[in-house]
Amino acid sequence: MIKNAIVGQSGGPTAVINASLAGVYETCKNFGIKTYGMKNGIAGLLKEHLVDLETVLPGELEIELLKRTPSSYLGSCRYKLKNADENDADYVEIFRILEKFNIGYFFYIGGNDSMDTIAKLSAYAQKIGSEIRFIGVPKTIDNDLAVTDHTPGYGSAAKYIATVMKEIIHDISVYDTKSLTIVEIMGRNAGWLTAASALSTGEDCAGPDLIYLPEIPFDTEEFLTRIQSLQETKKNLIIAVSEGIKTKDGRYVCELSADETVVDAFGHVKLTGVGRFLENLVAQRLKIKVRSIELSTLQRCAGHLTSRTDVTEAYQAGGAAVPAALGGNTGKMVVLKRLSDTPYQCTTDLYPIGEIANLEKTMPLSWIDVENLQMKQEFLDYVRPLIQAELPPIYLSGLPYHIRLDV
Amino acid sequence: MIKNAIVGQSGGPTAVINASLAGVYETCKNFGIKTYGMKNGIAGLLKEHLVDLETVLPGELEIELLKRTPSSYLGSCRYKLKNADENDADYVEIFRILEKFNIGYFFYIGGNDSMDTIAKLSAYAQKIGSEIRFIGVPKTIDNDLAVTDHTPGYGSAAKYIATVMKEIIHDISVYDTKSLTIVEIMGRNAGWLTAASALSTGEDCAGPDLIYLPEIPFDTEEFLTRIQSLQETKKNLIIAVSEGIKTKDGRYVCELSADETVVDAFGHVKLTGVGRFLENLVAQRLKIKVRSIELSTLQRCAGHLTSRTDVTEAYQAGGAAVPAALGGNTGKMVVLKRLSDTPYQCTTDLYPIGEIANLEKTMPLSWIDVENLQMKQEFLDYVRPLIQAELPPIYLSGLPYHIRLDV
Repeated sequence: MIKNAIVGQSGGPTAVINASLAGVYETCKNFGIKTYGMKNGIAGLLKEHLVDLETVLPGELEIELLKRTPSSYLGSCRYKLKNADENDADYVEIFRILEKFNIGYFFYIGGNDSMDTIAKLSAYAQKIGSEIRFIGVPKTIDNDLAVTDHTPGYGSAAKYIATVMKEIIHDISVYDTKSLTIVEIMGRNAGWLTAASALSTGEDCAGPDLIYLPEIPFDTEEFLTRIQSLQETKKNLIIAVSEGIKTKDGRYVCELSADETVVDAFGHVKLTGVGRFLENLVAQRLKIKVRSIELSTLQRCAGHLTSRTDVTEAYQAGGAAVPAALGGNTGKMVVLKRLSDTPYQCTTDLYPIGEIANLEKTMPLSWIDVENLQMKQEFLDYVRPLIQAELPPIYLSGLPYHIRLDV
Repeated sequence: MIKNAIVGQSGGPTAVINASLAGVYETCKNFGIKTYGMKNGIAGLLKEHLVDLETVLPGELEIELLKRTPSSYLGSCRYKLKNADENDADYVEIFRILEKFNIGYFFYIGGNDSMDTIAKLSAYAQKIGSEIRFIGVPKTIDNDLAVTDHTPGYGSAAKYIATVMKEIIHDISVYDTKSLTIVEIMGRNAGWLTAASALSTGEDCAGPDLIYLPEIPFDTEEFLTRIQSLQETKKNLIIAVSEGIKTKDGRYVCELSADETVVDAFGHVKLTGVGRFLENLVAQRLKIKVRSIELSTLQRCAGHLTSRTDVTEAYQAGGAAVPAALGGNTGKMVVLKRLSDTPYQCTTDLYPIGEIANLEKTMPLSWIDVENLQMKQEFLDYVRPLIQAELPPIYLSGLPYHIRLDV
């Protein structure tokens, strides 16, 4: 009897994670395999919250909408499986449900944590003699997964960040006065997203004056000196700052401003963002006009401005997972493998997940011009192909139309 | 001798203010009139910072780029002319420069303050017997100018806000947990921009749960009660809040949080944004997971996502100013006049500026569903035509390409 497939999405959303879902689903369909979607990842799977994808995605229009709908169509979760040796209750339940739905192939689209899930489930399957195959499909705007040349989701986020950086630079340049604008960009430990702001530099845009990545220790006094010095020769300064910049002793800069009067729902002290922290610092110490802009969640959900290259590769990564599983692979992740820079060519490959999960890929220090706080040509050559071309939304009544799971 | 024209841009940028500049310039050109641009508005004019537009915008490609470049190509200023009766030094200088460059037609693209400038200069011209004609071209994302059906710039901002609201709603809906997201939108005294978030509501999106406009007094306790009550039946709440919401006694809500330890470059106490203020309030009082997102300057400079209707009308408003001036009009503003709702048709008209400048058009109260804090159909019918169709950027190397004044 032909086995069925199941696919889930996990971790933070991206603008193209649904293109990977489309890739898994359409490829399964082409192989004659029925595909279930798990709602809210393995957390939903444990509650048997499954959906038959054929029912909710019956035709080509739904697939085209899916490719253009940001965020996780199936919903997501942040559920970390315990080690099976300590407590295998979740595992027993998951495999019971998978057997019940005659699942032979398990696909999970996500970042580091999701790959950890794939690693654990495939190891457990081996232990209990299950033949279910587990394949991971990479996804994260952070681009911090090891082995893969880049992650689906990064190219679109990079294109978005570079585009809005250009637009913000136009905006701040209109007045004949002095100012500093601080743009806070995502990335707790890796500077890939903030570095993408360097793409805005070109003949039509001066780009950011300084780029601060988590990979380079941040010094408050040196920062103030640089701003002081730059503003003597340039009117409207703009800097790109990663939310995750740290001091030499490893503390997040945003922690320096902990306001103990504000606590979150869990009683934790609430942190001011690093942009706001630096804004206040400059206002107090340098007395120049300063403001901060936090790009916020739009970095990861701007479905209206995606990289077509990224959408295509996300689809391919999802699609490649299927023949991999059919061919007997398990406990592996699909990776993107760059074949050539000029012209850019990229294909997929497979890699054992154990060697990938829980590793974090940061920016090579040799790609950073530490003296001028700019990105070197090596980085620009790496990232430029990933932002090429567009996949415009399908507009209805003037707005991008999306597909939504309502069951 | 044929007179020359001069055009300037003033006030805050929009995504389509350059389309109005293109309209003025191309129409002048068609009438055989040479056009100067003033850099940084009348502040630059007073320094004779002029540019010959024929030199910097020689061909059709430059015009197409101009239409797609956000923010003010010629630069802007916030320069308020004194009353001529009190001090006419600026006036004397401005008219000396205008005579020197043989200017017969003066066009100024801007909001309320810019229209005030046009009113004062045209009155002064009349007083001294100058035949220079002064015409204003409306521009503001805030949509708060009187008489005109709407302002160029508003449609694109509304489209941007509704689009990102849909995307944020997708983003917040992926987890199977409870949360509140507060989206802070521009508008100090008028709710037009925040109201546009209601456009996101449709069959593919639930839209914002509550919409808070400056037109309706804000009550902190009632707000907390509503959130408390809503979260009992809905998981991921999202509300749209205007930066300018005020308490019953007329104080800005964001002023309630004045942090006296933080002062800006001018020694003013720095205000926390209203989104951040409400976020802290909810975290402390309701103990639910909450975050705030400030749409920030992207609302006015997102050239990558404009309304083609808005671009076209901005161009037409600029263009219509030229025959108006040639026909002998002065001290007037071009207004947009809606001829029909079904189908939407709009043309331009002229209106004496004295009756427009320094008035502020707020949202009609009858368009607000005060009980449910939603927008009524009347508003949706008004705004929907303004966001129709797109004018995609010209992409080079994966990013929108812009035109920049480098002289």
